[in-house]
Amino acid sequence: MLAALILVAVNSVALAQTNQPADDWKPAPSNMPGQPYPQVNSEGRVRARLQAPQAQDVQLNISGVKFPMTKGTNGLWLGESTPQDQGNHYYGLVVDGAEVPDPNGSFIFGSGAWRNAVEIPAADQDFYALKNVPHGQLRELLYFGKTSNTPRHCFVYTPPNYDKEAGKRFPVLYLLHGYNENETGWGHQGCAGLIMDNLIAEGKTTPFIIVMENSAINLRPGFVPRGAPPAGASPRGNARPMFDFSPFEHALIEDVIPFIDANFRTLADQPYRALAGLSMGGMQTRAIAPAHLDIFSHIGIFSGGSIATNEIKDLAAFKQKVKVVFVSYGSRENGADGKADVAALRAAGVNSAFYESPNTAHEWQTWRRSLHEFAPLLFKDL
Amino acid sequence: MLAALILVAVNSVALAQTNQPADDWKPAPSNMPGQPYPQVNSEGRVRARLQAPQAQDVQLNISGVKFPMTKGTNGLWLGESTPQDQGNHYYGLVVDGAEVPDPNGSFIFGSGAWRNAVEIPAADQDFYALKNVPHGQLRELLYFGKTSNTPRHCFVYTPPNYDKEAGKRFPVLYLLHGYNENETGWGHQGCAGLIMDNLIAEGKTTPFIIVMENSAINLRPGFVPRGAPPAGASPRGNARPMFDFSPFEHALIEDVIPFIDANFRTLADQPYRALAGLSMGGMQTRAIAPAHLDIFSHIGIFSGGSIATNEIKDLAAFKQKVKVVFVSYGSRENGADGKADVAALRAAGVNSAFYESPNTAHEWQTWRRSLHEFAPLLFKDL
Repeated sequence: MLAALILVAVNSVALAQTNQPADDWKPAPSNMPGQPYPQVNSEGRVRARLQAPQAQDVQLNISGVKFPMTKGTNGLWLGESTPQDQGNHYYGLVVDGAEVPDPNGSFIFGSGAWRNAVEIPAADQDFYALKNVPHGQLRELLYFGKTSNTPRHCFVYTPPNYDKEAGKRFPVLYLLHGYNENETGWGHQGCAGLIMDNLIAEGKTTPFIIVMENSAINLRPGFVPRGAPPAGASPRGNARPMFDFSPFEHALIEDVIPFIDANFRTLADQPYRALAGLSMGGMQTRAIAPAHLDIFSHIGIFSGGSIATNEIKDLAAFKQKVKVVFVSYGSRENGADGKADVAALRAAGVNSAFYESPNTAHEWQTWRRSLHEFAPLLFKDL
Repeated sequence: MLAALILVAVNSVALAQTNQPADDWKPAPSNMPGQPYPQVNSEGRVRARLQAPQAQDVQLNISGVKFPMTKGTNGLWLGESTPQDQGNHYYGLVVDGAEVPDPNGSFIFGSGAWRNAVEIPAADQDFYALKNVPHGQLRELLYFGKTSNTPRHCFVYTPPNYDKEAGKRFPVLYLLHGYNENETGWGHQGCAGLIMDNLIAEGKTTPFIIVMENSAINLRPGFVPRGAPPAGASPRGNARPMFDFSPFEHALIEDVIPFIDANFRTLADQPYRALAGLSMGGMQTRAIAPAHLDIFSHIGIFSGGSIATNEIKDLAAFKQKVKVVFVSYGSRENGADGKADVAALRAAGVNSAFYESPNTAHEWQTWRRSLHEFAPLLFKDL
């Protein structure tokens, strides 16, 4: 989300396209059924439409980059973007200078609010496609959190065979969202359920439970999370420490995990617990997991930094307790430090993997692919 | 939703208020955490805010009734509505004539799109308040529907003790949404889970499963549903037949119920199955349930018509198979026919109940209250 926030600051109207867009527009796959707009074409352009007969100026706004729209005779404005990366994008409209959502759009939570989403069909979309395979359940839960003294709200993915195999226990991945996102992201635009359903149907992963909690509690600017470089130090990749993660660390270990272990048929031991997250969730993972190797054995950091060997206090214990450290970035992010850290971890004897998502930036397509690469590495001894 | 649709046609800007609104504005309880607008006051007025320095005219739009907003020196527009009924309301903004959502609002699906929602605190909101009681789960499911030959998507509420009492089977309520709504409504703005959690915690209802499917399949204008009065006949209350419900009838009986019975620990017999719905869902209920008394024993019709004794072909069989017919309306709807029909059913020996929601119209507060009144009448022999 940090890169997305930076993009929001860009406020220029894109230059008119000199090339004519390919005329193969289709409703975006993210639209509600029957909703014709927004549309996408084979070049990955987005076309939006708005009924605004009295407006003087309407623009299409994709993460802060604005594209002019043109008024037709019927009061309908139409406008197109430049080609976008494959996958999910936040977008909105600008009506006479006011930034507003598209009334016909679908909505996801991102950048701190419910925003329009448009999906550019991806060459590799098969791995998160809705198929006629057994599906897991995405369960919405409410419970009381003692450390925060508030109600808590989370989503739990249970694999397709969870209810049928009533005597079986399952390992658990705790999967964290990014800054200004919330617990809805992974199950919705992250396609976590579909990714798992398809991997399980193909026999490519051990079935496991995924817990998606809200990790944005009590974030206070200026604090440095445990394990992060000190303030003022050169940040490693996108991992820029800004927040105190300890309230969430307490909630996760004292509220969330005990609640999940008490209410789901979990394998409630360190070898069967993973922690991973994207962006800020990756920073939280690298702050929390290495400090609690009695609790977590598998670590995934997606576009959120990495773990340097010299940050590990007891390498022998780390090698013994950690089954995998997975680090990923989009190819349009700076993942060089992450890649080097993984190479160093491997040289030091830690089972570690680096993944670079082709032609994507700090965005959901990077993280969908990261989960798809990470899941098969988990709980391999089951 | 029919009344809501009629309201949308009203396009007048409300007259300026002569009385000063009570100055006790608070963020609406429906807002995302930390979001200060929209606000509500003790009179049930709604106050919206929008950053729109270059706009010429901005209005607050509550179900088609528009209220002027005023531009402040900082480019922030502010405006207030007249007092609204307690409960949930759809709203939006109008920027220089373009109807758009409030970028800071929460969203629910209604009137055919994702729309802003604002919640006016209700005097009786305790029955759907989030409390520190055991909570059920709201499960999102994907599966393949053979009659529609498409993937199907539904939500299932399981009561708090469902997973813990692994040997127990539960009765099921199939609960339908209204026209231009979808399967998200009851679990979200309908507060079905919270209503059930609270009733169960107080021992006021038998715990049961609720299935919330999309019933808006293949609706074709002009068709008369089974059991409805013929086209041209005077409609009874809000029950105006407009659609062919048979595709959904097939899907419900041949796809949905078998899938639920195969994947949940249901009591899969007629005495333990209820069908209910709001508005169009009530019309579907009165068309489908009496035609399938081998499948359903409990019938709930919320703001969607009623069952007249002269429509019942075999009264003796109906009395024997139907455990309850529940009919409800908001006091601002025309529920006179429904009330008379319930009196006639009772006189004929059918267990039947009528409920009128005080000071509400064709809106969610009526339907939340209806579920709260209906649930305790279900499966009383368990």
